[in-house]
Amino acid sequence: MSFTIERVKTWIPGLDELLNGGIPKRNVVIITGGPGTGKTILSQHFLYNGLVRGEASVYVSLEEHPVQVRRAMATFGWDVKKFEEEGKFAIVDAFTSGIGEAAKREKYVVKSVDDVGELIDVIRMAIKETNAQRVVIDSVSTLYMTKPAIARNTVMQLKRILSGLGTTSFLISQVSVTERGFGGPGVEHAADGIIRLDLDEYDGQLLRSIIVWKMRGTAHDMRRHPFDITDKGIIIYHDKVFKSHVM
Amino acid sequence: MSFTIERVKTWIPGLDELLNGGIPKRNVVIITGGPGTGKTILSQHFLYNGLVRGEASVYVSLEEHPVQVRRAMATFGWDVKKFEEEGKFAIVDAFTSGIGEAAKREKYVVKSVDDVGELIDVIRMAIKETNAQRVVIDSVSTLYMTKPAIARNTVMQLKRILSGLGTTSFLISQVSVTERGFGGPGVEHAADGIIRLDLDEYDGQLLRSIIVWKMRGTAHDMRRHPFDITDKGIIIYHDKVFKSHVM
Amino acid sequence: MSFTIERVKTWIPGLDELLNGGIPKRNVVIITGGPGTGKTILSQHFLYNGLVRGEASVYVSLEEHPVQVRRAMATFGWDVKKFEEEGKFAIVDAFTSGIGEAAKREKYVVKSVDDVGELIDVIRMAIKETNAQRVVIDSVSTLYMTKPAIARNTVMQLKRILSGLGTTSFLISQVSVTERGFGGPGVEHAADGIIRLDLDEYDGQLLRSIIVWKMRGTAHDMRRHPFDITDKGIIIYHDKVFKSHVM
Amino acid sequence: MSFTIERVKTWIPGLDELLNGGIPKRNVVIITGGPGTGKTILSQHFLYNGLVRGEASVYVSLEEHPVQVRRAMATFGWDVKKFEEEGKFAIVDAFTSGIGEAAKREKYVVKSVDDVGELIDVIRMAIKETNAQRVVIDSVSTLYMTKPAIARNTVMQLKRILSGLGTTSFLISQVSVTERGFGGPGVEHAADGIIRLDLDEYDGQLLRSIIVWKMRGTAHDMRRHPFDITDKGIIIYHDKVFKSHVM
Amino acid sequence: MSFTIERVKTWIPGLDELLNGGIPKRNVVIITGGPGTGKTILSQHFLYNGLVRGEASVYVSLEEHPVQVRRAMATFGWDVKKFEEEGKFAIVDAFTSGIGEAAKREKYVVKSVDDVGELIDVIRMAIKETNAQRVVIDSVSTLYMTKPAIARNTVMQLKRILSGLGTTSFLISQVSVTERGFGGPGVEHAADGIIRLDLDEYDGQLLRSIIVWKMRGTAHDMRRHPFDITDKGIIIYHDKVFKSHVM
Amino acid sequence: MSFTIERVKTWIPGLDELLNGGIPKRNVVIITGGPGTGKTILSQHFLYNGLVRGEASVYVSLEEHPVQVRRAMATFGWDVKKFEEEGKFAIVDAFTSGIGEAAKREKYVVKSVDDVGELIDVIRMAIKETNAQRVVIDSVSTLYMTKPAIARNTVMQLKRILSGLGTTSFLISQVSVTERGFGGPGVEHAADGIIRLDLDEYDGQLLRSIIVWKMRGTAHDMRRHPFDITDKGIIIYHDKVFKSHVM
Repeated sequence: MSFTIERVKTWIPGLDELLNGGIPKRNVVIITGGPGTGKTILSQHFLYNGLVRGEASVYVSLEEHPVQVRRAMATFGWDVKKFEEEGKFAIVDAFTSGIGEAAKREKYVVKSVDDVGELIDVIRMAIKETNAQRVVIDSVSTLYMTKPAIARNTVMQLKRILSGLGTTSFLISQVSVTERGFGGPGVEHAADGIIRLDLDEYDGQLLRSIIVWKMRGTAHDMRRHPFDITDKGIIIYHDKVFKSHVM
Repeated sequence: MSFTIERVKTWIPGLDELLNGGIPKRNVVIITGGPGTGKTILSQHFLYNGLVRGEASVYVSLEEHPVQVRRAMATFGWDVKKFEEEGKFAIVDAFTSGIGEAAKREKYVVKSVDDVGELIDVIRMAIKETNAQRVVIDSVSTLYMTKPAIARNTVMQLKRILSGLGTTSFLISQVSVTERGFGGPGVEHAADGIIRLDLDEYDGQLLRSIIVWKMRGTAHDMRRHPFDITDKGIIIYHDKVFKSHVM
Repeated sequence: MSFTIERVKTWIPGLDELLNGGIPKRNVVIITGGPGTGKTILSQHFLYNGLVRGEASVYVSLEEHPVQVRRAMATFGWDVKKFEEEGKFAIVDAFTSGIGEAAKREKYVVKSVDDVGELIDVIRMAIKETNAQRVVIDSVSTLYMTKPAIARNTVMQLKRILSGLGTTSFLISQVSVTERGFGGPGVEHAADGIIRLDLDEYDGQLLRSIIVWKMRGTAHDMRRHPFDITDKGIIIYHDKVFKSHVM
Repeated sequence: MSFTIERVKTWIPGLDELLNGGIPKRNVVIITGGPGTGKTILSQHFLYNGLVRGEASVYVSLEEHPVQVRRAMATFGWDVKKFEEEGKFAIVDAFTSGIGEAAKREKYVVKSVDDVGELIDVIRMAIKETNAQRVVIDSVSTLYMTKPAIARNTVMQLKRILSGLGTTSFLISQVSVTERGFGGPGVEHAADGIIRLDLDEYDGQLLRSIIVWKMRGTAHDMRRHPFDITDKGIIIYHDKVFKSHVM
Repeated sequence: MSFTIERVKTWIPGLDELLNGGIPKRNVVIITGGPGTGKTILSQHFLYNGLVRGEASVYVSLEEHPVQVRRAMATFGWDVKKFEEEGKFAIVDAFTSGIGEAAKREKYVVKSVDDVGELIDVIRMAIKETNAQRVVIDSVSTLYMTKPAIARNTVMQLKRILSGLGTTSFLISQVSVTERGFGGPGVEHAADGIIRLDLDEYDGQLLRSIIVWKMRGTAHDMRRHPFDITDKGIIIYHDKVFKSHVM
Repeated sequence: MSFTIERVKTWIPGLDELLNGGIPKRNVVIITGGPGTGKTILSQHFLYNGLVRGEASVYVSLEEHPVQVRRAMATFGWDVKKFEEEGKFAIVDAFTSGIGEAAKREKYVVKSVDDVGELIDVIRMAIKETNAQRVVIDSVSTLYMTKPAIARNTVMQLKRILSGLGTTSFLISQVSVTERGFGGPGVEHAADGIIRLDLDEYDGQLLRSIIVWKMRGTAHDMRRHPFDITDKGIIIYHDKVFKSHVM
């Protein structure tokens, strides 16, 4: 077969090993899991690993103030200010609606997230100006939390713009701690890939695990693996299998 | 009994063995399963196997851009462009609504999938012009995802046109990862056949299996079998039984 | 007790043995089960067995084109055309709404199934003109699928006319593959009898079973039995018990 | 304690033994269970046993034609016509709405069951004219099947009139085959007593059992017992315990 | 710690032992359980034990006619008429709406329970005139059965008046036989205490048990105990533990 | 890494040990659990421990009268009046709506909790005037109990003001006794931390346990621990693991 797949390496310890070398370029990947599972950290780790290797990126923040995002990343030693100043990293502020002193210093602000069109316009601008190759949206669930009927359509619109502009993207999908799904049928089937993070209690002990459920365009590892969150980010034990009786 | 059933061979390794030789002609078969189970690949494999043996076919794309469909098929070595040029293969673009440069090059475009009548008109035209014998609709779930009350009626309308024009068709029905059903009572009972693909986790390992739940007009295999997705498509291990404790 | 029950034999191998000789005359019996369980075949077998023994019958088709019904019955060697020509068998076409060339050749056509009154009028006429003693409605679920509130009332209206005209009838009730009920409380309690068909997976193997859950006016077998669908129709192994852990 | 409870004997074999001698007079007792469990037969048996011992009674029929009720009771050897002619038994026809030839011969007809006031007026008249001491309403579920919000209020209204007129009554509450409740919180708590009939499958065998869940004004048996439906009615094996793992 | 808790003894055999001596004064305690669990008897026992020791009390009846309440209490030897004549006991009639001859003899009548304001006014008057220290509302569930959105608010309003007037009160919360909760989050969290009564079937035998789930202002027993309903009321076996596998 | 996290010690025996020394400053922490689990006591303990060490604090009371809050805290020996007089502690009365004599003596009163804007204004004023560093809202569930669609937005608004003013806060989230979640996806994901309290029955015995499910900005203990409520408040056995089979 003469067809070669272009891959984007995550450079997260252990993750590329699960993906046959990396994520097929332009794939829109759902990062899903309950609260406290590490979705945001994994996604920020993915972006920062690109930045230090010369790949520009965009982080769309719907859950936290941009100031808080920079601070949170810094706790892992990921200093993004330098890259912002170089025009290689952008935070799209879809949190403050532009209200507040700190918000006035942000370059990419979405006035209303109820207007998906405006959100997409700002994201497009940020991608083009930074020439971003990696994008994270944290989270997409926020966009349709109270309107599940529009979930699929929203993801589809994002997919068209993100894939169309050539980026490889992570879409964070929040599920409830008791839910074993990935965010609903509209979201699960629309995504090119699904990576699930879990935090489960066994015998009074919380354990972290990760599994690649789906990845279009490539073979991928078919096992669940333990992982840790350290002060340097995510470490996946790709050579260990996490055996569970759940799902 | 003087009555002989006309069968359509899938030529997918192991599948015809489960179907007593093939799918009874004109049957409308639901291909159902959760995200990442391989429904699209199985359906594209079914079409391509017909094309190389001289049977024209139509692929109705509601989930992906036609350009992406061609690219995805090519990763399995299934080059459909040749057949499109010969007028033996058509992609019905029910994804772009005709918006975008690439879409302008598509021949069969559905402006609005909310209008099932328009969708059916375009499908009918594509079938007649290619003289298609095989049709895939990927997916029907999209047509009634937010309107379950119309599910049965939509499937019934498609069934009349697809069966009426003499084609044998696969309708992809997306279910959530946690759902054990096939897409709801209206869909399950309306279909002539149901083939279920599963992806289940056992002891930290994802395993694929397939079962023919129903096939009107023929006896069929009554066991669950393991299968693989390779770089050449689907391989079903029809002589191995997949024993599970699920469902 | 001087009271003697008049019974209608099904002549389906093994079934009358479960019913203490047959179905009490005028009973309205729900035939229920998931997709692919054989409800339609059992019901058609019931009608054809009457036809060849001189009992006229009516088949009300809400799921398939009458042409398709005749063809499907023929695959089991049940040629109903002869009986239609003799005026002893009638198909009520509640599928096409009278649209299409083939439909114009049908004698009993229901224009709109949303109008239960019209449906009942056509059924009454077909029963009277054929002097039918057996009736099948395939399926009643279709009549209230999106309107569960009218389920009981619809079944009650059918019961009055079917029982009032002296026929013994099968009403097919479709349930989802995951549902263990019989079609909802309104339907379950209104029926004179309930026969349940099941298709369950055990260790990767699909198995068929049948159980008579309820039959007014007679004692009946209280066990679950395996059955097969052969190219001659249904065979029930009335002397074998199907042991399960379900329900 | 100087207080003596007046009891109404059911004279159903084995049942009074479970009730410390009988049902406290004026109690309104819910008879509940799934389809085919024998609720109607138990209730008719209760009435007939009173009739032959000189206690007048009223049967309110919401599910069957009065003609059918008489016929069904006759299959157990319970000939009620004699008692109707003597003015000691009355069937309240809440089924036909007074439509049809046979209905014109009925004395107590409820035109519309949507009007609980009218139903109660007719029941009151029937009780007063027959001087009834036992009443059965078959079923109360029908009165609020599609309007659960009015369930408690309906039962409360019936309770006031039935208890107020000094009758001891059975209210049949239909539940779905898969439901382990007794008809909803409004009904369960409003009733003076709850007797549950069950039909469960164990190892492919249907088994009948009965349990008195609640009976105000008296101690009662606290065990589940097997029972049979014979051609002479209900027989409860009050000295055998039915052990199950359900509920 | 100089703070001493004032306690109200229930004088129900075994109950004060579970409550470290009694219920903290002014507490509003939910008595919850399915049908037939003994909620009403426990509550009436609580009131009567106060009456014979000189503590006035009020019983708010939403489920039964006041005449029936007096009669039911008398079956346990609890003659409340004497206390009513002495002005030390009052039944608030929230059942008859003042309709009927017997109701005209009642002193405290609530015309409409849909008007919580009126209910509260009548309760306040009854408490003040009797100088009640104990109050039972049987049941609060009735007040919001069909309007769950107002449950918390209703309980909050009652809590303010009952606690504000210095009474210690039992609010009966009816749950369905299959529900393991206590009446919904609004009710469970608003109450100062929760006492749960259960009736469960084990091996064909109904068993009664009680557990104090919560009691603000005091330590309490943390075990489930068996109890009986005798002809003298409730007896709790506080030194026996009821081991179950439920909840 | 040059970045140092500022931590707020809870000084609750055993809790700081689970939090790697304390809660990261400005974190908004959900305290969640069923009725009777000790959420309010834990939160009041957190505040009082700050008060005696010189940290001002605010308690927002939506469930109880401020008078009752002071009284309840006093039962643990936590006398807050002194601190109120010194202007170091404030109770925001979001319970009485300013109605009643006692309420008139309260300084911080919220007229209507339906108006989140007013609530936030009063909280801001109380924080500023006391210079509070710790805040408890008991409970946030009350704010959206009947309006789940606004849950996330309400928590987000509170988070902005509480974190923005530099306080470290506990938000009490009430869940039903049968619910294993933390208050819904909108709440679970918006919070910086989640501490879950449980009360579960094992073999007839109620047992208390606590687990830190999530805490942004710090590593934390990953085990479930038993804890007690004593007359001096909460004691967590941080060196014992509570093994369960739940969740």
